[in-house]
Order: sequence, then structure tokens, then C-alpha cells
Amino acid sequence: MSFDEKLSARVAEVEQIVSSYLPKEEGYQKTVLEAMNYSVLAGGKRLRPMMMQEAYRLHGGDGKVIEPFMAAIEMIHTYSLVHDDLPAMDNDQYRRGKLTTHAAYGEAMAILAGDGLLNYAFETACKAFEIAPGVHTAIGKALTVLSRKAGIYGMIGGQVADVEAEKKGLRIDEDKLMFIHAHKTAALIEASLMCGAILAGASGEDVRDMETVGYNIGLAFQIQDDILDVTGNEAELGKPIGSDEKNDKLTYVKAHGLTEAAAQVEKLSAEAIALLQKNTLQDDFLIELTRALVHRTK
Amino acid sequence: MSFDEKLSARVAEVEQIVSSYLPKEEGYQKTVLEAMNYSVLAGGKRLRPMMMQEAYRLHGGDGKVIEPFMAAIEMIHTYSLVHDDLPAMDNDQYRRGKLTTHAAYGEAMAILAGDGLLNYAFETACKAFEIAPGVHTAIGKALTVLSRKAGIYGMIGGQVADVEAEKKGLRIDEDKLMFIHAHKTAALIEASLMCGAILAGASGEDVRDMETVGYNIGLAFQIQDDILDVTGNEAELGKPIGSDEKNDKLTYVKAHGLTEAAAQVEKLSAEAIALLQKNTLQDDFLIELTRALVHRTK
Repeated sequence: MSFDEKLSARVAEVEQIVSSYLPKEEGYQKTVLEAMNYSVLAGGKRLRPMMMQEAYRLHGGDGKVIEPFMAAIEMIHTYSLVHDDLPAMDNDQYRRGKLTTHAAYGEAMAILAGDGLLNYAFETACKAFEIAPGVHTAIGKALTVLSRKAGIYGMIGGQVADVEAEKKGLRIDEDKLMFIHAHKTAALIEASLMCGAILAGASGEDVRDMETVGYNIGLAFQIQDDILDVTGNEAELGKPIGSDEKNDKLTYVKAHGLTEAAAQVEKLSAEAIALLQKNTLQDDFLIELTRALVHRTK
Repeated sequence: MSFDEKLSARVAEVEQIVSSYLPKEEGYQKTVLEAMNYSVLAGGKRLRPMMMQEAYRLHGGDGKVIEPFMAAIEMIHTYSLVHDDLPAMDNDQYRRGKLTTHAAYGEAMAILAGDGLLNYAFETACKAFEIAPGVHTAIGKALTVLSRKAGIYGMIGGQVADVEAEKKGLRIDEDKLMFIHAHKTAALIEASLMCGAILAGASGEDVRDMETVGYNIGLAFQIQDDILDVTGNEAELGKPIGSDEKNDKLTYVKAHGLTEAAAQVEKLSAEAIALLQKNTLQDDFLIELTRALVHRTK
């Protein structure tokens, strides 16, 4: 089976799990439930729950306790897109060719659907306490990591710094650029891999390794994004290139040049793969997935 | 000491605890941290964390594990106000005589501050796992209740039904009215009392009693609000009366008349107080607080 075939099968498997945790569209609050489900089911590669499940398996996990956490991380990722798309933020009408949530349901309902998804992510993750009564301490640790990486010291923190940098039109320095990438992009990938390991009962050292892997993948992914904005094929990417140059935006490529940026992507991904191979169990799919994400051309 | 003096002392005590869990205003995400703290410190009676702490004491709790949950419920209450005040929702510029969060920090930052508070509420509650390593199961149960009562089957659910009823200008029936009151108003009071009991190690029956008490207080509080909109003293209330009549809004008073509404407030509060007195421990302050909330004239 080719990697693309394996990936498609894994996407379908993950979507089935995530969907099973979505709320039924009934009751007086039905509209928000429809808006939440519309947002989650609007597509996406399901990378975060997929990586979480791979990290769980890599550390010997084979139970159901991971499933509510997989749904939770996808709900958190989705709420962040719903709120990012709002008129007061990026004001986007379309995402992946579909109407954004506020374009489809109105602004008030999009705010509430985002709130609903964020809150329901934690409500859903709490279902793990019933699924696996024997591992309440691990579930508590996973909730702690999930909430921290999603919040003001994680994804929201990066989003705030990014919004401010764009609104004020300020030249940001490289330190702030790295802060934005590490928090806005990498934090949820770190959370995915760390929660997978924690729920499988991994050691503190193994969990820290997963954090490093997530950081490296997130950063490499972002730098590759910047590289493609210079060297990519517009037809293949499905979007115009050169937008960073046009917007005079500081990127890793601008600060260090294309050669150095490509070398950095290589270095970050090689480190991540080495850490993944350190584990006595093997997970070839996770390694292939890492290579595919980092070296993508679209 | 009069009840008002006791209440002031308790507000100060609760505020000290809640404040100690607020984030330090530093780092690249500083603006959102300022907006979050501004919102929480803008005032309020701190009823939810206060009732949570009373319920904890009523069931024999005397540790620190309750404190992060007290901060969490106040953060959740606050985020709901921040998002309710947004231009796409109620579009309010002032609350308690102060600029609302979006009026002070802009709309994008108010959305992110609300998200930040909701997420940080769960992050803060998770600190209980470190404070009290011996009671992870109770903490898991409390997190489950907190997330459910705050979410689509609790406060957010009520808010959605309320927003839709107002936007569509529909005549709502009494069943929907009770749904809105029970979810928008009562759910967080139920969560406060239930989490207090759970974290003190109360029995399932005692926790269900606390849910009933919270429901009764929330509903009585709301009906009293509607009564005051007809019979209140504008100077004492600090706001115009008669707004429900003017807006042709269905209220309990409109459906049943003033006499029946007052009798219902009496019945709900008497039931709540009877349940509170059932406990072998006594908490006179909580009973006095219940009476004061339900029979208030402003």
C-alpha cells in the first residue's frame, strides 16, 4: 500500500472516531450544535488526532481512552479556525472552498459555536475518566497538557502575538517570529503527541521527547510553508505565491535565505525522526507522515 | 456582624483567591493577559466561587483543592460576559459603569480574551491535580460537572436559545423560557454547588441535592428579577423598570401573574433552604445568602 493510500485509510479511521463524539443536533440549542458539527466536518487532514493516536500506539497504548482526547484536539483546532475567520479577525468568507461558520450561520452563532467547541473539547476529554477508571492520574496529566498547550501559554498566546503584529503593521523581530510559530503552529502538535504518550503510560522522558518532536515538526512545517511561498508551484499549491514578499512579512526565509531555511527544515525533521526511532516500538507510518509533512510541495 | 458585613468580608476573601490564579501580565501575549485580568477584576459579587466554597465547607471540605475551581468558575462566568457584550451579540459598551472588554481592548482582543479565559479556566482547575494528588477521581468528577454545566448542555445552550429567541423576535413558549432560565442562569450556580460538594467527597445523593439547590436558587433569582422589573424602585435598582412589558417579553410574571410568581419564588427558596438544612453540618451564611439573593429588592 502506498503512503497516500495508508494516509487516506487513516484519515477515514480518525474521522469516524471524531464524528462519534460530535453532539446530536437536537434540543432548543440545536442551531449551535449544527454550526459546531458543520465546522468540524468541513474537512481538514485530521493531522492532530492522527498524530495523537500514533504517539499512543508508539508507546504501547491499545485502549479506547485515547479516543475522546482525539476528538477534543480536533474540536480545539476547529474552534480556533472558526474564531480566526470572524469579521473582527481575518474576516474570511471561505475556507477549503466552503462557507466559513459565520458566513453560514451568522456572527453571533459562530462566536457561540467556537465557544461551544472549546468547552465541549474539555467535556469530551473528561469522558476518558469513565472509559478508563484505572488511569485517572494519567488523564489528569493529559488534560493539564492539553489545556496549557491550547491556551494563553500555547496556541492562543501565539495567535495574540500574530494578530497584534499584523494589526499594528509592526516589524517583528526574529525572536517574536519564533514565538508565534512555536505557539500558534507547534503547540497543538506538541499537545497531540504528548497526550498520546501520557495516556499510554509513557515515562516523563518519553513525554518530553514527544514535545520536542512536536516542536520540530511544527516549526519545520511552518518554515516549509515560507519556502513554498517563494519556490512553490501556484497550480500545485492552489494559491498565489509571493504573498510574504508582497506583504513585507518577516519569515524564516527572509531572515536566513532559502538555502539556510531548507537546511533548517532538514535538521528539524532529522532530529524529530531520530527521536521517533529511539523508541523500542516502531511506527513507520508516523515517520513517513513526518517526512511527508515537512517535505511537502503543496 | 450583620449579613452585609459578613458578605463584604467573604467577597474580599474570594477575590483574593481568584486574583491569585490570574496570569502575570508579561510576554509577547501580554495584551490578552491584560484584557483577561481587566475583565475578571471589573467587579461583580463573586457569587459563584463564594457558593462553591460554602458548599465545600458544608460537606466538610477544608483543603486548598477548591481554590483553583473557585477561580475557574469565575473565569467561565467572566468569559461569558465578555463574549455576550460583543458587537455581534448585545453590543454593550459599559458593564457595571466600566468599559466592556471590546470597548477597552478592541473586538479581536475581546474574542481572544474570552477564549483565553474559558481555556484558562480548565487549565486552572487542572492545578487541583497537583494540589491534591490523593483525590484525582473527585477532581475528574468535578471537571466533568464543570465542563458540562458551562457548555452546550448548560450555560452556552441557554445562551444560544436566548440569542435566537431575541434575534428572531419569536414568541417563545413557557417550556423554552424555563429552558433558558435553567441553562443560562442556573447551570453555573448548580456547577458551583456541585463541584464544592464533589471536591469535599460528598455522596452522590448530596451532590444531586446541591444540583437541586442550585437550580432552585437560579430560577428563583430569575423570577425575582422579572418581579422587580414590574414592582421595583428605579432609584434602588439603578435601571429603568418596565422593560419586559415594553419589549413584549415572555416572563414568568407575564405567564402567571405577580402573586403566583412571588409564591413560586417562596416555594423554590424554601425547598433550597430545606435541602441545605438537611446536612448535618450547618452553614448559616449560605442559607442567609440564599435568602438575600432570592428576596432582594435591587
